[in-house]
Amino acid sequence: MKEMSEEEIRKGFDHLYSTDFITTNPNGWKETEVFLKEFTEILLSYIKQENDRTSKVLEFHHPDEMLRLIDLHIPEKAMSLEKILQCCKDVLKLCVKTGHPRFFNQNFGGLDIMCMAGEWATATTNTSMYTYEIAPVFSLIEKEVLGKMISLIGWNLEESEGIFTPGGTMANLYALNCSRYHFFPSCKENGLSYAPKLCCFTSKYSHYSIKASSAIMGIGTNNCFIIPADKYGKMIPEALEKKIIECKENGLYPFFVNATAGTTVYGAFDPLNEIANICKKYHIWFHVDAAWGGGLLLSPEFRWKLQGIEKANSVTWNPHKLMGSLLQCSSFFVRQKGLLLKTNQMSASYLYQQDKPYDVNYDTGDRSFQCGRRNDILKLWLMWRSKGMEGYRTQINKLMDLAKYFTKKIKKTEGYEMVIDDPEFLNICFWYVPKSLRNLPKEEKMERLGIIAPKIKGKMMERGTTMVGYQPNDDMPNFFRLIINNPATTKEDLDFLIQEIIDIATDM
Amino acid sequence: MKEMSEEEIRKGFDHLYSTDFITTNPNGWKETEVFLKEFTEILLSYIKQENDRTSKVLEFHHPDEMLRLIDLHIPEKAMSLEKILQCCKDVLKLCVKTGHPRFFNQNFGGLDIMCMAGEWATATTNTSMYTYEIAPVFSLIEKEVLGKMISLIGWNLEESEGIFTPGGTMANLYALNCSRYHFFPSCKENGLSYAPKLCCFTSKYSHYSIKASSAIMGIGTNNCFIIPADKYGKMIPEALEKKIIECKENGLYPFFVNATAGTTVYGAFDPLNEIANICKKYHIWFHVDAAWGGGLLLSPEFRWKLQGIEKANSVTWNPHKLMGSLLQCSSFFVRQKGLLLKTNQMSASYLYQQDKPYDVNYDTGDRSFQCGRRNDILKLWLMWRSKGMEGYRTQINKLMDLAKYFTKKIKKTEGYEMVIDDPEFLNICFWYVPKSLRNLPKEEKMERLGIIAPKIKGKMMERGTTMVGYQPNDDMPNFFRLIINNPATTKEDLDFLIQEIIDIATDM
Repeated sequence: MKEMSEEEIRKGFDHLYSTDFITTNPNGWKETEVFLKEFTEILLSYIKQENDRTSKVLEFHHPDEMLRLIDLHIPEKAMSLEKILQCCKDVLKLCVKTGHPRFFNQNFGGLDIMCMAGEWATATTNTSMYTYEIAPVFSLIEKEVLGKMISLIGWNLEESEGIFTPGGTMANLYALNCSRYHFFPSCKENGLSYAPKLCCFTSKYSHYSIKASSAIMGIGTNNCFIIPADKYGKMIPEALEKKIIECKENGLYPFFVNATAGTTVYGAFDPLNEIANICKKYHIWFHVDAAWGGGLLLSPEFRWKLQGIEKANSVTWNPHKLMGSLLQCSSFFVRQKGLLLKTNQMSASYLYQQDKPYDVNYDTGDRSFQCGRRNDILKLWLMWRSKGMEGYRTQINKLMDLAKYFTKKIKKTEGYEMVIDDPEFLNICFWYVPKSLRNLPKEEKMERLGIIAPKIKGKMMERGTTMVGYQPNDDMPNFFRLIINNPATTKEDLDFLIQEIIDIATDM
Repeated sequence: MKEMSEEEIRKGFDHLYSTDFITTNPNGWKETEVFLKEFTEILLSYIKQENDRTSKVLEFHHPDEMLRLIDLHIPEKAMSLEKILQCCKDVLKLCVKTGHPRFFNQNFGGLDIMCMAGEWATATTNTSMYTYEIAPVFSLIEKEVLGKMISLIGWNLEESEGIFTPGGTMANLYALNCSRYHFFPSCKENGLSYAPKLCCFTSKYSHYSIKASSAIMGIGTNNCFIIPADKYGKMIPEALEKKIIECKENGLYPFFVNATAGTTVYGAFDPLNEIANICKKYHIWFHVDAAWGGGLLLSPEFRWKLQGIEKANSVTWNPHKLMGSLLQCSSFFVRQKGLLLKTNQMSASYLYQQDKPYDVNYDTGDRSFQCGRRNDILKLWLMWRSKGMEGYRTQINKLMDLAKYFTKKIKKTEGYEMVIDDPEFLNICFWYVPKSLRNLPKEEKMERLGIIAPKIKGKMMERGTTMVGYQPNDDMPNFFRLIINNPATTKEDLDFLIQEIIDIATDM
């Protein structure tokens, strides 16, 4: 039989199925190849479109409309390759383009091509990180990259260790758990019954994962004390110390303080050195949640904002935020080698045998809370190598410049008002005050301003031209939080956003 | 300027960098495209080789050798596209081919092409699952697939809910946490101080994540009671009841029982109905960890093995195991709608605003312990659609047939001895007894057998022809655990393994 050409195979997708691929059909290599190339073409068009500023960031539909637009059901019979390609196109059409240069909605964004390629390779090499046995080269890469990050934090490699976790919340949970083990190792076996009543501290603007971790660990959210912040969103060290003393007087045992380097909404940096001193004075674990701000360590110009992080007992750092890695890519570090193992080890004999034919110190599984653990390292490593230290420095400094540019510009633009006057990071929080509200008395203005951001956001999503998030905070009415985190973004994109909001709000 | 051809661009990779891609260079589309196509070619070769039985499953090197073979350092200056491609090739060469038809080492394996394509698309559309706002279509797909899985469990859709989690350990942690909230909601706020002393139960062959969760939740591993199992590896219900009574007498509060559907080593199914009855009698939460066995629900012929799962209060089910999804793909289900929200909600106002321009019930973030959550659904959905219910039925039944074939064959082959005589699932546990040991008295034989499996495994890894795991269990010396979980595997592959072990052990 004559071999079919690529084109002939492509034309036959209507009658080909996934069972025709090489994995179940030994003669199916050509079909596999043609399908994957066709699939890649679809992804390439997506990427091309995403980077085209005349294309939309999203095509908004309400959930019920969306359900009418796309068939989601799991069928009885297999769907042909043709149908699958079509259904992939349909899905892509309805996606929010988080890599679009005008997507400012979250503290992740952008699509780093190299990182994406790395993630494709990760998929292709599908493995779990628990043992060197089945992830030999990835285990070594992880060790290398963690080592680099540890030196950027400013710790001694011999005394510290780290691990990649599925998200920053998990990394913060690791922090609380390691710290509890450090002070009360018997908790692991005996539970909290024999421990004093533990309490921890975090600023009012910190991430909610500290509270969530307190809940799951049996400490309780009421014993996670919320420390006030100053007008820049930074934790007030005096208030922390006061609360620690108060807790001790009330018979609680303060064991853990979380300081944030780059808060979620304001992008504020807590005063790490002062908090470190308080922790030292009261023998409390000092954790720095640098999930968002950690990337600044790559900029010699801006790393001073994290001064004091080297005094931390543990650190959370998400490369999927400022470093621009694809989701998920989060890491946890602790300045006490061996603590991850002691805290998490359950010694499952079927996985972590000690009589393996290689040095089992390279098996990371027993240092992790998880068993199977995704390979989140290849993409980060490839991306980092492709930029080098110099590339990251340029990239991050450029983002900081853009933030400055945007701030300066809206300060001069009528109708815009800053929530925090001088943002110190890549979060810029602002109101847009429509004409009809501008001359109202302040109280009334603030009251009516609350519905403006959601209204603008609604229209913005309908237009689909750009995306920026909003939220209330404390007594302040809804305001926008712009995040500048995509190396593809330019000054023109920021100008566009400024004008787009003005346009949308014209008759509000 | 004349536009460069693909070939010319390809030739210039030595002088091109990631900054030349479209994301930072508006004229860089062609470079992006050519690079990604070239990268895809490398991945295609990997897949082709992986499915070629004359190729190795792995090229084994000890960690120190490996470090000499590949340069891992993060450079100061950017590496060229050419160098990056080379470094990707180097990495792939050193990977364990978990999709190779002769990889039997873990309870994941195989490389489903459609699932991989889905994962490539997931990377390209890089988003987080927390809100409908930025994951509109993926949120709906998740809801649809969870609904399908809920109906396969046998629950009422109106009363139940689920969520995808980063791994089965996290799903089991969700189970314990939901259950604790159900009985003692105030724990979330007040911690364990005001709760009675909680305890939970799981069989000796269950996954270690139940113990790990007890540790992290402040319950303590000593209060996670290990229930004995029968000779097939199934939990003994009478022993469970006895232990529950004993705990109550000792002033403990039994709140949670974990039954396993498909244990890690033996692949045993705990007697779900009997355990369900005991839980009902003592008002204890009944969880089924079907991480491994859940996939059998897709086979009308074998789903009876999970009879009783419909009585569970919660279920863990990992599609990245028997359903052949790429890692990670795990799910958690609970038969009490609203409990996920009540247990996990922290109401972060910056993310889960209630005044959004769409129905915020579609936002899943507040039901999750995590904040950012990876899109693990697209790949599963595409794969499932490409097979249909029928395809899965065929695939899973075929694996069960292969397990039967292998068991029958080694029972007839000299030197092979079964650990459990009639395996009920896809785990086949056996010893290979080299000639020199066969005629020894039983006790001495068993004693000397302990070093045989590691020795065989060591040589097997050096040969690189196949991979199967081993472990000790209870008083039993190291034995092999074969997992049949790759649709690409054939009877000939199993024959190969049987002969390979004989060959390797010839002069042991």
